[in-house]
Amino acid sequence: MPEMRAAVMHGIGDIRLETRPVPVPGPGEALVKVKSVGICGSDVHYYAAGRIGRYVVEQPMILGHECAGQVVELGPGVTRVKVGDRVAVEPGETCGRCEHCKGGRYNLCPDVKFLATPPYDGSFCEFISMRQDLLFPLPPEMSYDAGAAMEPLSVGIQACLRAHVAPGDGVVITGAGPIGLMTIVAAQSFGAYPIVILDQEELRLDAAAKLGATATLNIKDTDHAERAREVFGGGASVAIECAGQGTALRLGIGLLKRGGRAVMVGLPSEPVAPIDLAQIADGELVLSGVFRYANTYPLAISTFQRFRGDLGVFWTARYPLSRVKEAMETAHRDKARHIKILIDPEK
Amino acid sequence: MPEMRAAVMHGIGDIRLETRPVPVPGPGEALVKVKSVGICGSDVHYYAAGRIGRYVVEQPMILGHECAGQVVELGPGVTRVKVGDRVAVEPGETCGRCEHCKGGRYNLCPDVKFLATPPYDGSFCEFISMRQDLLFPLPPEMSYDAGAAMEPLSVGIQACLRAHVAPGDGVVITGAGPIGLMTIVAAQSFGAYPIVILDQEELRLDAAAKLGATATLNIKDTDHAERAREVFGGGASVAIECAGQGTALRLGIGLLKRGGRAVMVGLPSEPVAPIDLAQIADGELVLSGVFRYANTYPLAISTFQRFRGDLGVFWTARYPLSRVKEAMETAHRDKARHIKILIDPEK
Amino acid sequence: MPEMRAAVMHGIGDIRLETRPVPVPGPGEALVKVKSVGICGSDVHYYAAGRIGRYVVEQPMILGHECAGQVVELGPGVTRVKVGDRVAVEPGETCGRCEHCKGGRYNLCPDVKFLATPPYDGSFCEFISMRQDLLFPLPPEMSYDAGAAMEPLSVGIQACLRAHVAPGDGVVITGAGPIGLMTIVAAQSFGAYPIVILDQEELRLDAAAKLGATATLNIKDTDHAERAREVFGGGASVAIECAGQGTALRLGIGLLKRGGRAVMVGLPSEPVAPIDLAQIADGELVLSGVFRYANTYPLAISTFQRFRGDLGVFWTARYPLSRVKEAMETAHRDKARHIKILIDPEK
Amino acid sequence: MPEMRAAVMHGIGDIRLETRPVPVPGPGEALVKVKSVGICGSDVHYYAAGRIGRYVVEQPMILGHECAGQVVELGPGVTRVKVGDRVAVEPGETCGRCEHCKGGRYNLCPDVKFLATPPYDGSFCEFISMRQDLLFPLPPEMSYDAGAAMEPLSVGIQACLRAHVAPGDGVVITGAGPIGLMTIVAAQSFGAYPIVILDQEELRLDAAAKLGATATLNIKDTDHAERAREVFGGGASVAIECAGQGTALRLGIGLLKRGGRAVMVGLPSEPVAPIDLAQIADGELVLSGVFRYANTYPLAISTFQRFRGDLGVFWTARYPLSRVKEAMETAHRDKARHIKILIDPEK
Repeated sequence: MPEMRAAVMHGIGDIRLETRPVPVPGPGEALVKVKSVGICGSDVHYYAAGRIGRYVVEQPMILGHECAGQVVELGPGVTRVKVGDRVAVEPGETCGRCEHCKGGRYNLCPDVKFLATPPYDGSFCEFISMRQDLLFPLPPEMSYDAGAAMEPLSVGIQACLRAHVAPGDGVVITGAGPIGLMTIVAAQSFGAYPIVILDQEELRLDAAAKLGATATLNIKDTDHAERAREVFGGGASVAIECAGQGTALRLGIGLLKRGGRAVMVGLPSEPVAPIDLAQIADGELVLSGVFRYANTYPLAISTFQRFRGDLGVFWTARYPLSRVKEAMETAHRDKARHIKILIDPEK
Repeated sequence: MPEMRAAVMHGIGDIRLETRPVPVPGPGEALVKVKSVGICGSDVHYYAAGRIGRYVVEQPMILGHECAGQVVELGPGVTRVKVGDRVAVEPGETCGRCEHCKGGRYNLCPDVKFLATPPYDGSFCEFISMRQDLLFPLPPEMSYDAGAAMEPLSVGIQACLRAHVAPGDGVVITGAGPIGLMTIVAAQSFGAYPIVILDQEELRLDAAAKLGATATLNIKDTDHAERAREVFGGGASVAIECAGQGTALRLGIGLLKRGGRAVMVGLPSEPVAPIDLAQIADGELVLSGVFRYANTYPLAISTFQRFRGDLGVFWTARYPLSRVKEAMETAHRDKARHIKILIDPEK
Repeated sequence: MPEMRAAVMHGIGDIRLETRPVPVPGPGEALVKVKSVGICGSDVHYYAAGRIGRYVVEQPMILGHECAGQVVELGPGVTRVKVGDRVAVEPGETCGRCEHCKGGRYNLCPDVKFLATPPYDGSFCEFISMRQDLLFPLPPEMSYDAGAAMEPLSVGIQACLRAHVAPGDGVVITGAGPIGLMTIVAAQSFGAYPIVILDQEELRLDAAAKLGATATLNIKDTDHAERAREVFGGGASVAIECAGQGTALRLGIGLLKRGGRAVMVGLPSEPVAPIDLAQIADGELVLSGVFRYANTYPLAISTFQRFRGDLGVFWTARYPLSRVKEAMETAHRDKARHIKILIDPEK
Repeated sequence: MPEMRAAVMHGIGDIRLETRPVPVPGPGEALVKVKSVGICGSDVHYYAAGRIGRYVVEQPMILGHECAGQVVELGPGVTRVKVGDRVAVEPGETCGRCEHCKGGRYNLCPDVKFLATPPYDGSFCEFISMRQDLLFPLPPEMSYDAGAAMEPLSVGIQACLRAHVAPGDGVVITGAGPIGLMTIVAAQSFGAYPIVILDQEELRLDAAAKLGATATLNIKDTDHAERAREVFGGGASVAIECAGQGTALRLGIGLLKRGGRAVMVGLPSEPVAPIDLAQIADGELVLSGVFRYANTYPLAISTFQRFRGDLGVFWTARYPLSRVKEAMETAHRDKARHIKILIDPEK
């Protein structure tokens, strides 16, 4: 049985390079040689805390779910991809049969198997086997790194879909981490203008500007809210919260005009937080959650194809598979100097 | 100059019957002889507290805005109504020119003149002059009392519109005051089933049952949430908060299934309240405000025409114009025995 | 191997009672004892013409797809239904993996296996095996006949969904066959009012009135369009074409007001027909197709539960399985006296 | 009373330079010195045929409605613009009171007064007085010519709004006249990709490519449909008909995938034309009309601000006001060499 290298998490702060059997693609699956994997905030969180909310790492597990690679073998009945295809990998297998799946919101499927969400292994390894409908061929101009970025870009797209971003909408984004930055890219694809982003790290605000933000504001500057208001004139149409903090959500909501929409990407660090209900009522505002994404990969790829900004600022380091632990430590501790760190499973 | 009787609020708890000139209908306006006016919670609030949020009663003012009457005189250029028409009166004149008006959400117009919202007089008087597009002819089978109920029913309809209620949606309503009760009527019109309502007053829950609620639950019973969950099976699709309380909002949100939508009708008593953001995120829930209504009167009248329940339970007392102060006191102090109290301006 | 009786079509006008093996439920499937099956216009069309458009009966085939029954055996891994459940059967198995399935419009899935659409067998037989997610438990008050009617009701619901029918919409329906009649039921569930239906058979118009149509008009009366206009005042919001004829579609479109929406249920008898494009352009009308349905069964059951009309007028005859051919002949030839004919597979 | 020059149409092919009183701005109106006006196909049609459908030129009339200029005087109560503002002019004054206006679709208002639609004068003159809410200040980087182009761009935006164009939608546009070309700009703003346009004039296809079309196809090439299909793979999501011809509409619809949407911009040259209803039914396609636009000007300006293509190819000639007749003749006869011809009212 052929073997492969894999970075396996055995406990908090404990990741070891081991060998595992190469998976065998089942019916409708393809074997993908992983070429690039991004480290997500959730990977770091599992690594550092052993859990995220109700999801707990209870046995040795492979992290990593933002990935792209090349199809190297087909299981029975595969027709949508062929050996040699370069593909982005959508990491969640959903049931296709429940109310949510049938209704087009498969991200709410209770039976999802999501890479690197316990107890399912992820892609910090050489090969993964995936259902063919989760593999999206990359156009020739897209690199594997770009392919791996389709996952965080999908989150930004889902945020825009949930916020019903349309041309002419002024959008404020709170938090310029990888998700906030990909949301800038997504929002442009939906026609948003102007786009204002707030963070406290200059590195990230610089990247935001290069990715197309109309204005970047540092929340350490005391007049940040006032200056955001100036850009929008009468208030923003949409606020997208990507910082995971109640404070940031309140800031974004506070910048909305009547009829505006706020969305909250990912789980906030405080599960319950005070919200200005009077403003929501008076302005008929909308506040929505954003949980992963559905049907976004084709949009993400087409968004990338049309994108005119410099995606190079997004990636700040690349580590070989043998040094995943070091990469995780860097991602965990050095946010001032890093945005997205990549793992190269071929090294 | 002809005069009319009017109930004028001079200060907190101070309403006096006085005479005022009968208004003269301007271009595009019609003079309406008021036949029935409902007392709204906001009327009571102005009476008892002198203000609601940023709206302050600073000069003598006529309260009352839920009204119906008969057209008795036309100003220049009126074509949509004629003398003798029995009409429901939509109480907010909006500008028709701002972004919100042009976009179809005129309830967000910043320049609205709303009956009985300071500094504009309301309809606790014999005659009002209204723009013709705010007058909706009543079909013969509708009484003036029913015509006046088109206003709170409009709020319920707006709540359903904002919550995107559609056939098959299970709806939970918190608060069985007049708005909650009219929301039961509205939700049936949108095809909701089942409809569960929660309150602590048995009188109101009884009325709710007669108006078509599938289940009525008293929040004094400790198992109310559990029993609501039983009715819905996998959770409600929609929660409509009509109690004006953060607790009630949290109760409703807690009963939603993934992908569910909550709306909050009117201003909550605590402007800022803690909300379970983690649940909103994880379930991609939506929380929206509901501020008055737009384009609801034709729907309200058609909803009434199709309604098969007993609207008689809605009205619990009728006072002549001369006794508005007494009516307000009753509305303010006796919620266990009253739902909607009517004023008859002809007496 | 246990056997069952089945009515098998061998060619145009040739249906024979034969024995077939009882199907064995596969993983995730349940065996259903069929209790009631409605004859659909498509069944009659296959019987009389051997084909519908690109679908051709090329080998012996069992017709019938509007059915309900009782779960009698479970395949491996079935959790959503249990033995003894009374269920309505949604007749189309879709792939769950294609763009349309994942986007919530699984009715457009190119790989659907639909009961009684060649080459797949239908339900004019004693037992069928179906995927568990296509079985919808019936509440105690619903008969198997009503369960079988969830299929044509689903078509009416899909028409309303596609037409975005909402409370207050005036709806005109052309054609009062089984689909037109079920569309009356559906439209009421969506809050439509008034509902005007046109046909040339008095039996059907009578049934339409009993099912809740506001007005029924015979197209043989030369003033039918004028009288429909009178009911709507300024024009209908929605036209639903259920007659399968270009003439009827033009009649419905002609009754719309500006901004109105027309939908066309099923395949028209003339594939290409002249349409008044100038009216569509000038009024910004919308014309949509309706192809089967998606996610309608829970709505259909909830619609039935709230329905207050007399569904008894819908069914006009019941034949045992042994006389399917006779039932088909009656359905084909006697539209003046029959609406929906049922097959009882237990007899 | 101050006078101005105006180009007045007195009959078919008869336009004369005359003097007219400078309009006096009424309440809420501003006087605009016209700086640039585009000649629209409808202007040419009135000039050449004296009518468009039910609109007939019955008295001397000023044509021209695509215009921008500078505010030079304010009527009473004007607050949204000030003297000196450079503005794009939205040419339709709607009532703000009817069902369509209140519902957000004011383009369907039956009482609209639209520049250069009989009996209302247009803007081939030095000054016009317009309601302030129809004046949209131009950002400094936008020329008056660009301001005048906001009108045809608005049509393209309305087409995209009606077709629900969203990121990732493949769009086919039939007809590369000024509207088709502006639709390319609009579709990019909505995130469409790829965009394929078909026409028979090479000049227009060249312009289309420069404005951002992914592929331009000449319908004189017999394989144009086949080549369009190749670009889209599985079919286009959206077809936008801008050629005013039934043939073109059928071509566009024929290129759609299941679930696709077609819109028809403007009045077709044949009011009634055959349509493939079977395809619409089978694919659940949508066909919508597009009539002018509503709420598009802010989007148009923001679209222009984000646009990266070369708008210079759009304008092919500029004539002084004194030579409007000559400009109209050129626009009418020389489509192979002209796209948008401008009038300069200052010369």
